[in-house]
Amino acid sequence: MVAADPVAGAGVASRAVLEVRAGVAEPKLDLLAEEVPVGVHYDGIPFAVMMASPGNLLDFAHGFSLTERGIACGGIVEVDVRDVLEGIVLDIRTTDPASAMMSSDQTRLMPGRSGCGICGSRLLEEVVRQPAAVGEGVVLAAQALEVALVALQDRQPLNAATGAIHAAAWCNVYGTVVEVREDVGRHNALDKLIGAMLRAGIDPATGFALVTSRASYEMVTKAAIAGIPLLAAISAPTALAVDLAQSCGLTLAGFVRPGRHVVYSHPWRLRVRPRQAAEHAS
Amino acid sequence: MVAADPVAGAGVASRAVLEVRAGVAEPKLDLLAEEVPVGVHYDGIPFAVMMASPGNLLDFAHGFSLTERGIACGGIVEVDVRDVLEGIVLDIRTTDPASAMMSSDQTRLMPGRSGCGICGSRLLEEVVRQPAAVGEGVVLAAQALEVALVALQDRQPLNAATGAIHAAAWCNVYGTVVEVREDVGRHNALDKLIGAMLRAGIDPATGFALVTSRASYEMVTKAAIAGIPLLAAISAPTALAVDLAQSCGLTLAGFVRPGRHVVYSHPWRLRVRPRQAAEHAS
Repeated sequence: MVAADPVAGAGVASRAVLEVRAGVAEPKLDLLAEEVPVGVHYDGIPFAVMMASPGNLLDFAHGFSLTERGIACGGIVEVDVRDVLEGIVLDIRTTDPASAMMSSDQTRLMPGRSGCGICGSRLLEEVVRQPAAVGEGVVLAAQALEVALVALQDRQPLNAATGAIHAAAWCNVYGTVVEVREDVGRHNALDKLIGAMLRAGIDPATGFALVTSRASYEMVTKAAIAGIPLLAAISAPTALAVDLAQSCGLTLAGFVRPGRHVVYSHPWRLRVRPRQAAEHAS
Repeated sequence: MVAADPVAGAGVASRAVLEVRAGVAEPKLDLLAEEVPVGVHYDGIPFAVMMASPGNLLDFAHGFSLTERGIACGGIVEVDVRDVLEGIVLDIRTTDPASAMMSSDQTRLMPGRSGCGICGSRLLEEVVRQPAAVGEGVVLAAQALEVALVALQDRQPLNAATGAIHAAAWCNVYGTVVEVREDVGRHNALDKLIGAMLRAGIDPATGFALVTSRASYEMVTKAAIAGIPLLAAISAPTALAVDLAQSCGLTLAGFVRPGRHVVYSHPWRLRVRPRQAAEHAS
């Protein structure tokens, strides 16, 4: 387990609401997910603003730096989490300040919303990145996906309190959930998980990631950049996500539900019975 | 109804997958949602790239221009939808090309992902916009939300084919669904709906919008900018979305389900019975 972030556990706000059941209204207090502008600065230069849940921001700083800037933990000297009037600033000091200076001249800037994936761009050709091939990683019984799915349900306190919060979990080959991170943005949850894995020294070749969201293309891109060989999503992938997973060697599973899932690329990492063999055995 | 877009109906791709049920794998063809880089150019100058479903892009051009640039339909001379190698370009010609030139010098650039809301920024203070107050709009029976919810289920062909596609619907005071737009991005679906309303001349003061997603803050911002007085979401709002809705006079309902919903701001637009009166009557 990674040491607690300064703001871990934050992310829930209370508001007065009217709950309407069968046309009858009752005032109550409701718990809502916070959605906070988080500015990411490298060596003093603003790089991006993400709308995020305000917990586990050190994890986020490390994961985001890897998946969006290619900066591994060794390239990060210090992360300072600073509350400001408009939100939170992550001041990331790197071993290569000249690189931050250079990127500030680029037109490739960053988006700001909780639902948003990665770096914004004004130019089409800059948007879709082809990640390097992932390593061989694990081969595991397909059933491990379901074991993890069930285990994850009890490991999402933000979602339990507020609803509609995404989670990203790291699981071993047996489906045991090792780490979980939550965020209002699915890509932020994955970045936080990747950062937690980096900080804890977890080898991404030893298990798989399970996300409670869809698998859009930036989820595959981030997983691949982090060296995660198998990404399982509770909801659907997009066609582009499947094509990227196929091309970088990542196993992508979707619609992970009790008793069922769909494998979209590189199924050899998931041990299943082919239908004929199953019929023969039964 | 708005005239069909050149690319309406697009957005579904077929891929070979393995479906695993109870540990037994069967090859099949699956339908997946396309997620395409869509470049938005104003008067020849690239402004943003959004990851979007490739249908109803004329609607998207009009809605996005209003909610992100403040450009109403009258400010748009022509929209040219162009296929290019990397995706699709929307060439939007405006009545004020000088404004596009100016914005190209700003550091406020745009994000690119399907889950992403609005314009990217590197600076915290530029991220959250306070929209002007919405008009009085409608007062309607809370039950209309549920009527619309049921009706919408049969009006989401992309989602029915692929899963995990967001829809945004425009509904009248009785809950009749008037227009629906779908997209892999929730904010794109809402922009497409707003664009369809603009093109069809639908007065946003005459009904409400229902979205199948969460209500994150950019959904409230876009709705308010379009003058939509009531936004209902099937899933949860964030605290920031509630605060923005409260401050701009928009009625925000969430967790719209059969027999239940929660009202987070300005409940006076939804006619319900207070609990005591209901008990007295029963």
